Amino acid sequence: MSDVAADGMPPVDRGPRYDPSWPARVDVFDTTLRDGAQFEGIALTVEDKLAVARALDELGVHYIEGGYPGANPKDEEFFRRARNELDLTTSTLVAFGSTRKPLGRSDDDPTLRTLVESGVSTACIVGKSWDYHVLEALRTTLEEGVAMVGESVAFLRSAGLRVFFDAEHFFDGYKRNPEFTLRVLEAAAVNGAETLVLCDTNGGTLPHEVEPIVRAVVAHFGGVQIGIHTQNDTGCAVPNAIAAVIAGATQVQVTMNGYGERTGNCDLVQLVPNLTLKMGIDTLAPDRMVRLTDVSRRIAELVNLPHQNQLPYVGQSAFAHKAGLHTSAIARRPDSYEHVDPALVGNGTRFLVSDLSGRATIEFKAKDWGIDLDGRQLGEVLDQLKQLESSGYHFETADASLELLMRRATGWRPEFFELESFRVNVEHRPGAADIVAENPMGHAHGIETECTVKVGLPTADGRTERRIATGEGNGPVNALDAAFRAAVGDRYPALGRLALVDYKVRVLNTEGGTGAVVRVLIESTDGDQRWTTMGVSENIIEASWQALSDAVNYLLLGAR
Amino acid sequence: MSDVAADGMPPVDRGPRYDPSWPARVDVFDTTLRDGAQFEGIALTVEDKLAVARALDELGVHYIEGGYPGANPKDEEFFRRARNELDLTTSTLVAFGSTRKPLGRSDDDPTLRTLVESGVSTACIVGKSWDYHVLEALRTTLEEGVAMVGESVAFLRSAGLRVFFDAEHFFDGYKRNPEFTLRVLEAAAVNGAETLVLCDTNGGTLPHEVEPIVRAVVAHFGGVQIGIHTQNDTGCAVPNAIAAVIAGATQVQVTMNGYGERTGNCDLVQLVPNLTLKMGIDTLAPDRMVRLTDVSRRIAELVNLPHQNQLPYVGQSAFAHKAGLHTSAIARRPDSYEHVDPALVGNGTRFLVSDLSGRATIEFKAKDWGIDLDGRQLGEVLDQLKQLESSGYHFETADASLELLMRRATGWRPEFFELESFRVNVEHRPGAADIVAENPMGHAHGIETECTVKVGLPTADGRTERRIATGEGNGPVNALDAAFRAAVGDRYPALGRLALVDYKVRVLNTEGGTGAVVRVLIESTDGDQRWTTMGVSENIIEASWQALSDAVNYLLLGAR
Repeated sequence: MSDVAADGMPPVDRGPRYDPSWPARVDVFDTTLRDGAQFEGIALTVEDKLAVARALDELGVHYIEGGYPGANPKDEEFFRRARNELDLTTSTLVAFGSTRKPLGRSDDDPTLRTLVESGVSTACIVGKSWDYHVLEALRTTLEEGVAMVGESVAFLRSAGLRVFFDAEHFFDGYKRNPEFTLRVLEAAAVNGAETLVLCDTNGGTLPHEVEPIVRAVVAHFGGVQIGIHTQNDTGCAVPNAIAAVIAGATQVQVTMNGYGERTGNCDLVQLVPNLTLKMGIDTLAPDRMVRLTDVSRRIAELVNLPHQNQLPYVGQSAFAHKAGLHTSAIARRPDSYEHVDPALVGNGTRFLVSDLSGRATIEFKAKDWGIDLDGRQLGEVLDQLKQLESSGYHFETADASLELLMRRATGWRPEFFELESFRVNVEHRPGAADIVAENPMGHAHGIETECTVKVGLPTADGRTERRIATGEGNGPVNALDAAFRAAVGDRYPALGRLALVDYKVRVLNTEGGTGAVVRVLIESTDGDQRWTTMGVSENIIEASWQALSDAVNYLLLGAR
Repeated sequence: MSDVAADGMPPVDRGPRYDPSWPARVDVFDTTLRDGAQFEGIALTVEDKLAVARALDELGVHYIEGGYPGANPKDEEFFRRARNELDLTTSTLVAFGSTRKPLGRSDDDPTLRTLVESGVSTACIVGKSWDYHVLEALRTTLEEGVAMVGESVAFLRSAGLRVFFDAEHFFDGYKRNPEFTLRVLEAAAVNGAETLVLCDTNGGTLPHEVEPIVRAVVAHFGGVQIGIHTQNDTGCAVPNAIAAVIAGATQVQVTMNGYGERTGNCDLVQLVPNLTLKMGIDTLAPDRMVRLTDVSRRIAELVNLPHQNQLPYVGQSAFAHKAGLHTSAIARRPDSYEHVDPALVGNGTRFLVSDLSGRATIEFKAKDWGIDLDGRQLGEVLDQLKQLESSGYHFETADASLELLMRRATGWRPEFFELESFRVNVEHRPGAADIVAENPMGHAHGIETECTVKVGLPTADGRTERRIATGEGNGPVNALDAAFRAAVGDRYPALGRLALVDYKVRVLNTEGGTGAVVRVLIESTDGDQRWTTMGVSENIIEASWQALSDAVNYLLLGAR
């Protein structure tokens, strides 16, 4: 609190605020590759899984649960390849499994043997700790339920593995029959389990219930490490884990971006900064924490899901300020409007443009881009934004299109090329070029796509040179892109560096069915910078052309 | 616990578990239309706002904050129209505003006067309770900060309004200078504010901090109602509100689906069922609570955002079970796998099909649809699912396409029509049909779209009748739809009832830029049932055709 900012006010104290009754350090156990893969919409290849593991290692999590080799051939292959190809520098790879079958023997249980054969140093096995499930799902006695846990842990220990024990449905079990849940945990502990992980499998427990239960378990087991595994069914996965840590748990089981079955798992990107940046508990080192935003977004790409803008800490909107009124105050003193410094997690402050935005935001952006707008021009831009946003444009993410709009207000016009026309032809017919065999859905993909573009290029002596070119593609927009490049590529060599890295289609007014308005966002790169442009039309090809031509204009503007 | 299920086991006790130290009842104050509208991506018309207010009234929330009439002409119009057109039966409409300006007078403050003129019975005004912001953002004295609050409340009370006071940045303020924050609240209370709402404006406070602070405020103010307004910047908006209620707060400020600035606000659909179904605190009556899922999804449509599958309680995945192993156990005893009965919030259990699904899930679905699969056919379906999912199909949402696939495995083939070919032509050129004036982005929407379809229809005597038709549309898929209907509509009158209610495009492998694979989902209705079909191709038009033809086959199959 001693240093003083430029305006004479001291900075805001944003913590962390550590309480000495809490643990000093908590281990981060990531289960994105096992429990996270249960997320509706995720389907990972072995290649994907290896890439995710590398990203998590880079982030510096302590444990990476790689999969369930006994139940899933893909996961067996993952562990096989991990042995040869994964060179983890900070993380320990863990294989997941379950206890032996009722009335079976541990030493010939296929799941347990696969765990040993997977070649990892550490296994995490799940067992039932809710009496109800032992009786009802396993249809065995409580004594046998306890024996299954103890003998399975003992078998893995005798094979030289470190063992974590996941107590399934622990909180439901504890509420109904605490003695039995503790007997199950004891069986794991006395047979050598290193960590007893309390799982809220249904996700129905609330923080005020978690804390006293974990406190009782921590007291009961003295020196054994207690872990916490929470699900988000009540929206409380993160605070439940915090409550458990406050009560003495020192391993947190999390997934990247909260991926997981149903409503998801406890989210690494939310829990870990809360513990460290706000509560002062060691998890990831500061030089790893700054990679959080990047790794979170990279893993979203790897699992092929859009990165959620609203994610705490790492989302694109997490430190985005919209209300026009406050923009200047926030720019002056972000510390008093942002609960944490976004740079600590590798994120940053953003100012958004929308119909709620005031002059201040637009002025701020213009200055940023070196565009000189007078009062009249500024008013014109604000009017145009209002008009465009009401017809479906949304400039919040499409900064490059916004920059072009603002330059237009100063009288600038793009003069690199002028589209005269394009014609896109899509034919589905017998004998079309890439006909393939009928797939099980009965759809034959016989389709031929072609586009012809006519475009005018300015010449040195002020005339217009007309170019006509045709391109083929595997889809209409791809063909349009190809034809355009064929027409003008030799004039603008910079186009050779232009790559489209992301193409998103959002159908507005979805009730309109196939006649709805679509918004296309294209993210481009020249290998160095990245920028996003936008198009809106009832016709997806026209909308794509708008976004594509903006992307090219933006590139050429910078390449002059 | 006294009734006994078919298998002889008693049902699981899923609460609620009420603690007599908690309040018996909490008022639900919805601010979707004011704070929720700050969500990145939301832009509401007055018509939208009226529709959202009606949906919230139907849900039975106690208060609906409609907007900020003093700062936003659209919101002024909303309140004007609300007076005449909104016939709320359960909710009280509230207008939002801020305290008077520093060193100004309350009785000629334009914002305060607009509140009175808005015609509502109840106003909610925000004022600064963090000393730092009074000094730094308002640039006035702490005494004046207190006076602004007291005089503004007094003015509104003298005009006959009920007043709620939102204490901005309350928790940051309290941690730094508790005396000042309490002075601000006192000024509001002694001048007649009915409720003092503690706002975690930056969203940086954690539950273990909220509870003791709220407890202190509740003790300090005795009989005055205390409210809580939380933001989700640490992923703790919901548990922070729970912690405040446990400490004695009896008004919760929430938004539908957690919409709000940055990472969003405290989510009604998560908080309210937690308070009532799990903690036994009265909020919405049971006959309103069952509308929660429907209203949540309807409002998502009204604000034109996809409804998040992972939302606790109301999301499509909230009670969805994927793991093939457990499907039969869950079907037998859902109470021991679901933390709450989904019917209480109008949601239901779902079983998902994916490459992790076992035979049990497929058998379960087949039985549901009356399809008789033998062992070989079942194996074939499982193999095909695996193959199709690896090439981008995802059957989790496209039940109608899955049903067609399963019928194919029994030897069934759709025989209603056979596509010979289609040709889609999109022309962007000078003089095209619907040329409009250049918009501010410089994009002229001169575009003409046409499609020709050739299709064979079976005749009664076993021949094929060839049909050729051409359709126009505002986009390529719309034109294809029109041409297809023109070709076969007279043969199948049921097509007249077919409407496409939703059309979604998801670009897979977005790194492929404009050459990526796309998955199209089409939701259709015949006015009665709704069903979803799917297509996958590198060509968006081909993918759309696949989804469209499945939709038609599904319709005709049912219409026989």
